[in-house]
Amino acid sequence: MTERPKLWREETVETKPIFDGQVITLQVDTVRLPDGGTTTREIVRHPGAAAIVALREDKLLVVEQYRKPMEKFQVEIPAGKLDPGEDPMEAAFREFEEETGYRAASMKLISAFYTSPGFADEKLYLYWAEGLEKGTMQLDEEEYLAVDAITFEQAQQYIREERISDAKTIMAVYAWERYRLTGTI
Amino acid sequence: MTERPKLWREETVETKPIFDGQVITLQVDTVRLPDGGTTTREIVRHPGAAAIVALREDKLLVVEQYRKPMEKFQVEIPAGKLDPGEDPMEAAFREFEEETGYRAASMKLISAFYTSPGFADEKLYLYWAEGLEKGTMQLDEEEYLAVDAITFEQAQQYIREERISDAKTIMAVYAWERYRLTGTI
Repeated sequence: MTERPKLWREETVETKPIFDGQVITLQVDTVRLPDGGTTTREIVRHPGAAAIVALREDKLLVVEQYRKPMEKFQVEIPAGKLDPGEDPMEAAFREFEEETGYRAASMKLISAFYTSPGFADEKLYLYWAEGLEKGTMQLDEEEYLAVDAITFEQAQQYIREERISDAKTIMAVYAWERYRLTGTI
Repeated sequence: MTERPKLWREETVETKPIFDGQVITLQVDTVRLPDGGTTTREIVRHPGAAAIVALREDKLLVVEQYRKPMEKFQVEIPAGKLDPGEDPMEAAFREFEEETGYRAASMKLISAFYTSPGFADEKLYLYWAEGLEKGTMQLDEEEYLAVDAITFEQAQQYIREERISDAKTIMAVYAWERYRLTGTI
């Protein structure tokens, strides 16, 4: 009997494309295991997204919209998918103005993270926006959302009520809290 | 011309099942828009997961494993899918012991969040474990991972190097930092 390895790089034996959609694609990869056998990995591919933490008079800019996967309205920081080949920071500037109607002078990367490393390659780039001025709101045809600005206490309250309940927005509130506690982002 | 509504609850006109896998299912819903037209939403269903922040002698317990969607090794906090009908806290106790070989005396919920609200219903429950003692490691047949314990400075370093780059682990490091700064979780 061979010793069970701790780490194992999973080589692809076969890739089966399942679905090619507007937002995601799905494939099932068959991968080699250390004992010579195989197993399958279900993989969602997504172009990635940019999300923006923007404070205006000490309030966080948020958008409310209907989220079909959860069948409920959710309050989130502004965000959007990257266009093919688009730089994440450009996407942040673009999406921020389109969704909120404000233009930002600068965007600093707070962090970039994979949202669901077990089954998806979606990477989200979280930016800190500064120097806000009036711009032009421009929603996609199929996008319906309401812009709001909330205090730190409201943000905490919304998290308790699960009106805020997505990873990027909770991360944004952590980043905001750290900024309040340490003065750094 | 009717005024464009800001908020709109998307009623389902039709649900088309696409894929039913081991980890996820995929469906495409056709939904009604305010102008009477329709559009489609691609929806990944996932049973949800529990993840655990556990400190041992001021070090964070982490696991390293190969993540096929990104084709790279990643350092993450211990986590696992909920079994059908399983309580998230029970899953946290179970997965923590299975993956790390430690048993926890208590689990406190830090937060619960949707990882990718645009296309998936995956909800992740993040727990703070206390009272660690030796238990029994028990990995799934297709699971290969190495357990480690890292300092706060190492965690920051791993984030810079993108050895840590997933939402739940970056959230865990934020929670740890807040605990260091404020003494609360």
